[in-house]
Amino acid sequence: MIELDAPGAGTLEAIGSPAELRALSPAELHVLAKELREFLISSVSVTGGHLGSNLGAVELTIALHRVLSSPEDTIVWDTGHQAYVHKLLTGRASQFDTLRQPGGLSGYPNRTESEHDLVENSHASTALSYAYGLAAARRLSGDPRRVVAVIGDGSLTGGVALEALNNIGASKARVMIVLNDNGRSYAPTVTAFSSDRARHAFFESLGIAVLGPFDGHDVSVLDDALRVAADRLGPVVVHVRTVKGCGYEPAERDEDKCLHDVAPFDPRTGRARHRGARRSHTEAFGAALLEEAAARPELVAVTAAMGGPTGLNAFRDRYPDRFFDVGIAEQHAVNAAAGMAMGGLRPVVAIYSTFLNRAWDQLYYDVGLHRLPVVFCLDRAGVTGDDGPSHHGVLDMMLLSKVPGMTVLAPSSYEEVGVMLHDALRILDGPVAIRWPKSEARSEPAVGTGLGARRVRGGRDICFLGVGKLVAACEDAAGILAEDGFEATVWDARCVVPVDQRMLDDAARHHVIVTAEDGVVDGGFGARVAAAIRQRVGPVGPCTVTAGVPSTYLPHGHASQLLVDLGLDGRGLARTALERMRAMDRH
Amino acid sequence: MIELDAPGAGTLEAIGSPAELRALSPAELHVLAKELREFLISSVSVTGGHLGSNLGAVELTIALHRVLSSPEDTIVWDTGHQAYVHKLLTGRASQFDTLRQPGGLSGYPNRTESEHDLVENSHASTALSYAYGLAAARRLSGDPRRVVAVIGDGSLTGGVALEALNNIGASKARVMIVLNDNGRSYAPTVTAFSSDRARHAFFESLGIAVLGPFDGHDVSVLDDALRVAADRLGPVVVHVRTVKGCGYEPAERDEDKCLHDVAPFDPRTGRARHRGARRSHTEAFGAALLEEAAARPELVAVTAAMGGPTGLNAFRDRYPDRFFDVGIAEQHAVNAAAGMAMGGLRPVVAIYSTFLNRAWDQLYYDVGLHRLPVVFCLDRAGVTGDDGPSHHGVLDMMLLSKVPGMTVLAPSSYEEVGVMLHDALRILDGPVAIRWPKSEARSEPAVGTGLGARRVRGGRDICFLGVGKLVAACEDAAGILAEDGFEATVWDARCVVPVDQRMLDDAARHHVIVTAEDGVVDGGFGARVAAAIRQRVGPVGPCTVTAGVPSTYLPHGHASQLLVDLGLDGRGLARTALERMRAMDRH
Repeated sequence: MIELDAPGAGTLEAIGSPAELRALSPAELHVLAKELREFLISSVSVTGGHLGSNLGAVELTIALHRVLSSPEDTIVWDTGHQAYVHKLLTGRASQFDTLRQPGGLSGYPNRTESEHDLVENSHASTALSYAYGLAAARRLSGDPRRVVAVIGDGSLTGGVALEALNNIGASKARVMIVLNDNGRSYAPTVTAFSSDRARHAFFESLGIAVLGPFDGHDVSVLDDALRVAADRLGPVVVHVRTVKGCGYEPAERDEDKCLHDVAPFDPRTGRARHRGARRSHTEAFGAALLEEAAARPELVAVTAAMGGPTGLNAFRDRYPDRFFDVGIAEQHAVNAAAGMAMGGLRPVVAIYSTFLNRAWDQLYYDVGLHRLPVVFCLDRAGVTGDDGPSHHGVLDMMLLSKVPGMTVLAPSSYEEVGVMLHDALRILDGPVAIRWPKSEARSEPAVGTGLGARRVRGGRDICFLGVGKLVAACEDAAGILAEDGFEATVWDARCVVPVDQRMLDDAARHHVIVTAEDGVVDGGFGARVAAAIRQRVGPVGPCTVTAGVPSTYLPHGHASQLLVDLGLDGRGLARTALERMRAMDRH
Repeated sequence: MIELDAPGAGTLEAIGSPAELRALSPAELHVLAKELREFLISSVSVTGGHLGSNLGAVELTIALHRVLSSPEDTIVWDTGHQAYVHKLLTGRASQFDTLRQPGGLSGYPNRTESEHDLVENSHASTALSYAYGLAAARRLSGDPRRVVAVIGDGSLTGGVALEALNNIGASKARVMIVLNDNGRSYAPTVTAFSSDRARHAFFESLGIAVLGPFDGHDVSVLDDALRVAADRLGPVVVHVRTVKGCGYEPAERDEDKCLHDVAPFDPRTGRARHRGARRSHTEAFGAALLEEAAARPELVAVTAAMGGPTGLNAFRDRYPDRFFDVGIAEQHAVNAAAGMAMGGLRPVVAIYSTFLNRAWDQLYYDVGLHRLPVVFCLDRAGVTGDDGPSHHGVLDMMLLSKVPGMTVLAPSSYEEVGVMLHDALRILDGPVAIRWPKSEARSEPAVGTGLGARRVRGGRDICFLGVGKLVAACEDAAGILAEDGFEATVWDARCVVPVDQRMLDDAARHHVIVTAEDGVVDGGFGARVAAAIRQRVGPVGPCTVTAGVPSTYLPHGHASQLLVDLGLDGRGLARTALERMRAMDRH
């Protein structure tokens, strides 16, 4: 067990570069591992971050850096949130208190931070393909430097990883695959392997040798294993058994997620210092789903290894037969839901907005082409925050609006989540997506059913058309403008696709229309509104300004601050409207 | 061997429903198989279509319909172009002369054609997920009807199929998987399996039983095997060995593709009646790639099992070490290219436009986020034709334009393909996509290098901004308008993203701007032009009309006719421009 009062970072502080790890004695390595855990717990308890997977990867990371010579040898971290120890051992301990803070260290590898980092994308299952590509480049030039991919057993259920395995086996690429097997992704891994023997037979059938399993918390065992693997000229899996949350009792005890990702917490107990967003959209969904499920025996829920964070745990406990965790496998989740719908079920697919990108082809050509009644419930939609560019959910509306026949809904309150889920199941007979942000949901008890937009404030000069959580920002903007003597109308669009024609009719009566969405502007809600308004009133009608997210990679940071930076808060939207009003006056 | 003079369709004609197959004697089945092959060869020699895979699936399809009771039992055909025999045995022989013709039978299963058809999407590797979803629905309701997925060994390299296998094994779903193993996708299958034993160990490691291998051209053997498999309550693979093109010597002899897909041909020789598009864009690419490769040793080519049809065969023969066929695995192809680029190579990924949809996540979060110099060469871009909704390449510009830092080029001539490839490698340091259609390329020897747009005709009233092959249609439209006394400018946009500012400046001087693209309008090139023009000149500037493809699923048909139907030929574009000119006059 960790003694949290121990003075931290004696050995850790002395590590100037990963090469110095080789000089440490077994006793010193033991101390180092202990210090790393203390450091992780202490630091992440303040900043928040990914904890469980990093506590499990302490000895493995030490051993990797002892055996390999990074950055000459390349270590590719799959799902980079397991790379904290790698960061600490490559010179970033002193900056670790800035983890995931605006302008601070990324929660993932980052090429601007260190020459030891390569892959910034934090979507799972990609490391083997990168490693294959790097190994192909080195083979062509006769470069003997090694390529190592560190991948969890959970990530190995993802299609792109499996595609890569086939190619690695077929080509005999010189890739060392370190299988960090802790039996989990976020949730326990959905696996067909009934034993280590089956797992090893799987790799061997693909022409990939397997070493192990090895104790992932014994540096000297790992040293030996990695050294043997590093000498091989063909592909090899080093099967390492680790314990997620290892060495920190609150994490090991947390059966649901092993403190996978945490907000700031009390390091003595592992308990969050503040309760998470109360009355979140996720909570609203979880509660509404139970109600719908009781009334509809044909309703089933599908998740790609994220049942807990998408709000499905209560449903899973109540209806285990109707709960389908398919593993980290978004493409299959969507296609399987298509099959379920063809079989008469009403599948609700709960997924993070950003991970839906993996299943674009299936959305368009499987669910969409067959006009199937699948309901997609997208959590973490919009500007999301801590996890940086590959976790913002800013593409969903742009993509979903291109799927013929797709209805896209965005609730602006806790209550509306349930109303929209109900309508999606009751009114609609084709695919529907409902998208909401991570943030706390406001309360709006008076919301009625139906897909129409809702006029929440009347005015004369400016018309705001807001989507989801930005409706509140539009209302703030209208309040600010009122102080300047401008009257603003505010609509809650509610139905992003198709756009409510009554809302457009009303908007067209204003001088300036400002659309506000927490998704990319190009090809988004506002762009469709602007096109519809032009078609409706011709070139002499009102001017439409589309506020939203530009086509760039947004950094990590606090969601609310990022929205301010993008001009998507009340002040920013008021400023945008005023500028346009003044420009109109000049004409 | 087939005797092509034999009187066709005696037994076949007598088959009213698949159930009647059960009453046939072995001798009658033999005659039926022969008749089916004669029918396929004779009919496809007139209409064109997919031949090799269907000749290989004759006995397998007969046996499936003898053992199962379709449509109560469900047969899901992966990559539905192997379902011709299924169509013939389910009442569609008399319409087979309309195959892939406008308004005629689809080249894939189609739910409006028959209750025996389920999945219309023709992208590979999806059948196992559909089958899993259907089996889950039947298990929940205690429905004993069987679910069978027929999938080729080539399709099994696709990630979504592998995701499904893991889930099927883990859940012990009652899915019968018929592995139609002919050793090929379009090209020979990229496989890590060195033997049947390895292949079977692979399935068994995932908890899926394996029967076989069986002779896929012996109906009685298949009957027995399928009957045993049909009785199982858990997942089972029936491994069936077939010969692509079986029974037709020209197909069996065609080593490159076994007459995979054919234009109308002489059934006696297997030779096409007309040579394919001469001086196609694909040919231009193949030739240009060889030139670039000679000058750049770091250039490598990547294909997802489609090296031949994307023009890579000459490159493969000349530079086998620099040619990477990764299997039907678009996600991995793109991620592997990202790794290669990180390793110092300059990968050129040649892929059909429609199949790039599979790799959207990798495009955006792997290649784009890391700003890697990967060149995507997209064949079959735009309205493509025979293969229907899931083969039109109408989404690429919409998607690619959302990837920050991506440059998108569209050649309008044979020569420009090479110029653009050269520029992509010479000028640009980030990701680039070059997209071209299947149709014959016109010649334009005077094209220079550089990414700028090209003004091909000057006028005063109307300004056409054309993309790729639609530049020719814009020129036709300008000619037609000249007869009506209107002067039209025509620009070849060349660089779809970013849009050339000089072109926008010039366009803004006209009354009406008409953009023309063979991709979806919503979120496409024209939408970005319209937004840029509005931003440039304000609401009182010229009126922009965006001509392109609506957000619907386009049917199969001849590409040129589909373009006419969409108003994307010269007459249609002239009409659009005139209507808008007249509407402007009325204001």
